[in-house]
Amino acid sequence: MSAFPRLTPLAQSLPATVPFVGPEALERRMGRAVVARIGANESGFGPAPSVLSAMRAAADGIWQYNDPENFALKQALGLHFGIAPEHIAIGEGIDALLGQIVRLVVDPGQAVVTSLGAYPTFNYHVAGHGGRLVTVPYRDDREDLDGLLDAARRETAPLVYLANPDNPMGSWWPAEAVAAFAEALPETTLLVLDEAYGETAPAGTLPDIARLIERPNVMRTRTFSKAYGLAGARVGYVLSTPENASAFDKIRNHFGMNRMATAGALAALADQAYLQDVLARIAAARARIGQIAAASGLAALPSATNFVAVDTGRDAAFARAIVDRLMADHGVFIRMPGVAPLNRCIRISTGPEAEMRRLEEALPQVLAALG
Amino acid sequence: MSAFPRLTPLAQSLPATVPFVGPEALERRMGRAVVARIGANESGFGPAPSVLSAMRAAADGIWQYNDPENFALKQALGLHFGIAPEHIAIGEGIDALLGQIVRLVVDPGQAVVTSLGAYPTFNYHVAGHGGRLVTVPYRDDREDLDGLLDAARRETAPLVYLANPDNPMGSWWPAEAVAAFAEALPETTLLVLDEAYGETAPAGTLPDIARLIERPNVMRTRTFSKAYGLAGARVGYVLSTPENASAFDKIRNHFGMNRMATAGALAALADQAYLQDVLARIAAARARIGQIAAASGLAALPSATNFVAVDTGRDAAFARAIVDRLMADHGVFIRMPGVAPLNRCIRISTGPEAEMRRLEEALPQVLAALG
Repeated sequence: MSAFPRLTPLAQSLPATVPFVGPEALERRMGRAVVARIGANESGFGPAPSVLSAMRAAADGIWQYNDPENFALKQALGLHFGIAPEHIAIGEGIDALLGQIVRLVVDPGQAVVTSLGAYPTFNYHVAGHGGRLVTVPYRDDREDLDGLLDAARRETAPLVYLANPDNPMGSWWPAEAVAAFAEALPETTLLVLDEAYGETAPAGTLPDIARLIERPNVMRTRTFSKAYGLAGARVGYVLSTPENASAFDKIRNHFGMNRMATAGALAALADQAYLQDVLARIAAARARIGQIAAASGLAALPSATNFVAVDTGRDAAFARAIVDRLMADHGVFIRMPGVAPLNRCIRISTGPEAEMRRLEEALPQVLAALG
Repeated sequence: MSAFPRLTPLAQSLPATVPFVGPEALERRMGRAVVARIGANESGFGPAPSVLSAMRAAADGIWQYNDPENFALKQALGLHFGIAPEHIAIGEGIDALLGQIVRLVVDPGQAVVTSLGAYPTFNYHVAGHGGRLVTVPYRDDREDLDGLLDAARRETAPLVYLANPDNPMGSWWPAEAVAAFAEALPETTLLVLDEAYGETAPAGTLPDIARLIERPNVMRTRTFSKAYGLAGARVGYVLSTPENASAFDKIRNHFGMNRMATAGALAALADQAYLQDVLARIAAARARIGQIAAASGLAALPSATNFVAVDTGRDAAFARAIVDRLMADHGVFIRMPGVAPLNRCIRISTGPEAEMRRLEEALPQVLAALG
């Protein structure tokens, strides 16, 4: 017994866990290098060259703490979205912001509504603050807006989570449905509208910023980790009312942002031409994954994200076997949804053609081996 | 009213605040550039050239999330200290780790013991989790070990904070006194032994790693922000028992570490020759600050850190005026302790000769202007 014996009862009740096993851990455990890293919905297309230059230039100032007010990035994001910077809170990726949102809103025992099989890291934070998860099944591989609304009302939940576009299925709702959902929620239920994959969605998927920005019970989360290609930098942000944005100042790690990361985010935002180029490449890679799946008799689901859920047509054990063999036999790292019925699928991130070709070679071999 | 009306009672009770106003904010508010950044105990000597190279090289991989297990950095730190990597927890600077420690240990209303005028960010986290701060005055400009021990026992406190060397005074206790303090604490009181400034302390200041590493009620915090010159990178760590180290996995942001930052920390640890060079320069700059202070009739306190507390010989208003005029009239950014009697002092970070010279020029002028 060499643990401090007096952790809080809540802390004692929690498991030491990780919401996702990283590909590096897989490499160590399996003794095999990842040769196609297409499992974590990162962007193998990378950030813009201008972003790399900006981050490298910022290294010279790394001896300095970052501006705790994140002034420049808030200004730039405000200009980008046509809103005052006071509407914006910055954090170390959406993961950190989700933890802060849960901490601000959820007391132990309170109900938090999400979809069954949605983002595990959100669930991790809810558990970490003693919240009680109430899950609503997906309907036709989409999050069930009516079901989420009913659950939020029934449970008088302080918090409900919706990702649009969705992870892990890649599905999405049109902007009007999402906005109507937000507007129908009780004023005492906060919606976390996670738009991590917003940039890759078709036009008409994201509600206008103006439509929801003044609603005290809506926080929209965005990130530089996906389309902007900066997953390892840790830059996310929240769009909400000024009062909500400043609530993060009650609890956040004010000096938590990496200085090179902020420089990278600023440069990424400034290089919208590169973003448009990447979006085209992501769309092409989605189609490519669809073709690779189809060639093996599997059906790719429509996707508004930088990944594609592929229906294996069989059960979770089969999907798990594909995921495991792709890594073990071919070094191809993908993931899969965690719960039924979503876990009949495998989830493949878009990436450059070299990675797509590895997948194209490996998938038929794995399926043949599995019989 | 555009705040979400249902924050937790604790969150509602907290102010939106920042433990420290950053120099960038001062620049914006005062409309004047900082020309000598010697207020935040950063290292103007910067990180090693090898560290800058490593971080720039790591930019190419920034599209990837960092290894959530922080395997390589734990391995390197374990080798460095001669302990198993399982004794180590990694976080986004000591600030983030302090927040996690408080969260793991402190329930609302519980007493947390620290010194009156010690690290404000620790106090911020205690308040953020509803803890009740119990403060012990400094004694002769050092943290009062006997007083802290008495308070911890009297309050049956779950948590006590001690920085050795100390911030903001730069004072320190010898290793034996610190170890004896740790060993005298009740088993149900966790000691956070903050050794952020450990590298700059004289030999015999830090207890041997082996002396405390198996104690379940001791967590030692270290950082790459000070002597290693990586404040803007956000890399800190905890040395404790394996069970305590793994407790962070219950609540931390597993994917929170910046990938370039980790590469920088690894390179910094590998370049101990550079660290030794910087330590000599810090020592020389401490002496230089002492000379500059003495030339103006002020007395520098002995320091084991990368900064020097200078006794103004008068009161807090006078010290505040010096701090304010140095910035307003000369662009020289320093800080001062927050409470009496420490706030008779100003606190000046060591830095390269150009910054020292700015101080040397500005301080007599400010004192003359103040009369």
